[in-house]
Amino acid sequence: MQTLQVDLGERSYPIHIGERLIDRAELLADRIRGRQVAIVTNETVAPLYLDRLTQTLSGYAVTPVILPDGEEHKNWQTLQLIFDALLGARHDRNTTVIALGGGVIGDMAGYAAASYQRGVDFIQMPTTLLSQVDSSVGGKTGINHPLGKNMIGAFYQPRAVIIDTTTLATLPPRELSAGLAEVIKYGLICDEPFLGWLERNIDRIRALDSAALTESIHRSCAAKAKVVNADERESGVRAILNLGHTFGHAIETHMGYGVWLHGEAVSAGTVMALEMSCQLGWISPPERDRAIRLLRRAALPVVPPAQMKPQEFLKHMAVDKKVLDGRLRLVLLRQIGEAVVTGDFPYDVLEATLSADYGAMTEHLGA
Amino acid sequence: MQTLQVDLGERSYPIHIGERLIDRAELLADRIRGRQVAIVTNETVAPLYLDRLTQTLSGYAVTPVILPDGEEHKNWQTLQLIFDALLGARHDRNTTVIALGGGVIGDMAGYAAASYQRGVDFIQMPTTLLSQVDSSVGGKTGINHPLGKNMIGAFYQPRAVIIDTTTLATLPPRELSAGLAEVIKYGLICDEPFLGWLERNIDRIRALDSAALTESIHRSCAAKAKVVNADERESGVRAILNLGHTFGHAIETHMGYGVWLHGEAVSAGTVMALEMSCQLGWISPPERDRAIRLLRRAALPVVPPAQMKPQEFLKHMAVDKKVLDGRLRLVLLRQIGEAVVTGDFPYDVLEATLSADYGAMTEHLGA
Repeated sequence: MQTLQVDLGERSYPIHIGERLIDRAELLADRIRGRQVAIVTNETVAPLYLDRLTQTLSGYAVTPVILPDGEEHKNWQTLQLIFDALLGARHDRNTTVIALGGGVIGDMAGYAAASYQRGVDFIQMPTTLLSQVDSSVGGKTGINHPLGKNMIGAFYQPRAVIIDTTTLATLPPRELSAGLAEVIKYGLICDEPFLGWLERNIDRIRALDSAALTESIHRSCAAKAKVVNADERESGVRAILNLGHTFGHAIETHMGYGVWLHGEAVSAGTVMALEMSCQLGWISPPERDRAIRLLRRAALPVVPPAQMKPQEFLKHMAVDKKVLDGRLRLVLLRQIGEAVVTGDFPYDVLEATLSADYGAMTEHLGA
Repeated sequence: MQTLQVDLGERSYPIHIGERLIDRAELLADRIRGRQVAIVTNETVAPLYLDRLTQTLSGYAVTPVILPDGEEHKNWQTLQLIFDALLGARHDRNTTVIALGGGVIGDMAGYAAASYQRGVDFIQMPTTLLSQVDSSVGGKTGINHPLGKNMIGAFYQPRAVIIDTTTLATLPPRELSAGLAEVIKYGLICDEPFLGWLERNIDRIRALDSAALTESIHRSCAAKAKVVNADERESGVRAILNLGHTFGHAIETHMGYGVWLHGEAVSAGTVMALEMSCQLGWISPPERDRAIRLLRRAALPVVPPAQMKPQEFLKHMAVDKKVLDGRLRLVLLRQIGEAVVTGDFPYDVLEATLSADYGAMTEHLGA
């Protein structure tokens, strides 16, 4: 087991990463204050891991909350099921909410914990690669609104994140790839040596080699924790974590939640950010292609949906959270391993990026 | 105009109190960062003050959000109307949400501001005495759940509180009295000299004498700010602000939201807390009666609903937020002007308090 401490003053918390941590009662006991626990999970994850976790928590009064699976359920109606269960079982202010599942479960359970009686304890046990390296670190929680993703939520820190790498054995390969989009992102925005490590180890990771998984998750969480430490409430530098996300959110919104996986949309969005950085002369075409090649080796899409024209992107990007007073700001690469957030680019470069022929650009970059 | 600074580090904010502050553009301009503003109000307050406030904000893009009036609308469905309006008008992260109305509006607008894009700026303009001295100070926001009041919410501080005392001219006398229950509470829990001042000035306040109103609101806010400063997240001493509230919440829940006004329930609940403090030998019967007499002079109920038997109280109090690990804790008076939070009392004293004959106790204390 490896442990990383996220340093946020009195809200600091540990991230434990290793094999079979679901069974480690002492990791949980260290971070649970009361006698009541609610495990929030979904219909897919519950049959796999709920009984085991309940057994680990045998000393507590456990309320299981099993939600429907899928991004389309990340809304108030589903969130309400958590509140109903907590109030129905009379959970008090000393209760602990544990999220057992992927990013959707983590976001909803976290927002429920932030809101229940104005805030109760929260522990993340992410079971997908994406949530292990992304949603479980940084304190972002929330739900979707019909007019936009993640528009309702809270910044709320967990008491602990417990990452059991063996849960990835039950993850569909497509979702493993989606998680790798975020892993590769950390290399691109702030850690060029990690990008090199990934180029050498991507096949081991995809084969679920335990040491490679632990190392890649640890380095990803460390990169994110470093950025989050510097800027907890996303007023400045933290926004570099959104490389590919502005384009990616537009893809997700346009296609309808859940059609493209989040990581898939981020992958195609990252290619667009790479292309734009290239057009601005900040990175070279070979550097752009090096990154695209790694995304392809991770079995990720590198071409945005054919039916999305520039005006579709622009429409969806106008309600993006990174719009400041009507001015669009994007995360771009100054060089490989160094991202910047900027609104200072010619509009025609954005338009050229939205109109580029990504099929032709990427077809010779064999996966 | 009097100004009180609430000192909470980087989240400090001013409370301005005075006549016709709704028209003072510079007070708002000082605390608004962007160009977008949403005014959240209700169907009762909008015809009285919305146009005037909109005129004061003539330099901004203003989105009015007019909600139905009443505690029974303090729920997710109504909250959603705020999010719909913010997203419909494309409010970004630099927007400011202004609450114009009573406690329900403040609680909902505050929770909406806390949750919209994970937190945007928030200004309180409370228009009822209750919200001026209570809900607008302390950062509590939230909505009700069918199984309990204020069960879903956030601790979220406003950028400013602007209290226009002339709005009390349009407040029904019954609601003015309800606000006085909280004003009197501050004297009881932490400021005996203020209680004496209230005994001398209660008639001027009820006649809406401007100087008396400003003074009573200022001293109430100062008392609350002092307690909140010491304990922002209600882990300890802050709970003394809930004098009368545990019994009062039981009354509100049992009678159905809105049948008894919050302040009315708090008044009857305060009498019960006084009686229990008396039975414990902490205050004397004449001290208890002194406080009851002042509540009666404020035209407040001092007898709980006749149909509520002890078991009804106990049932509702079991889901109260002050229940810690199943142990009931109550706010009681060590002496007039000094409250304590304690779970250390014989159960039979609680039962005797719930069974006492409040009609007989109070009927000789002429209003």
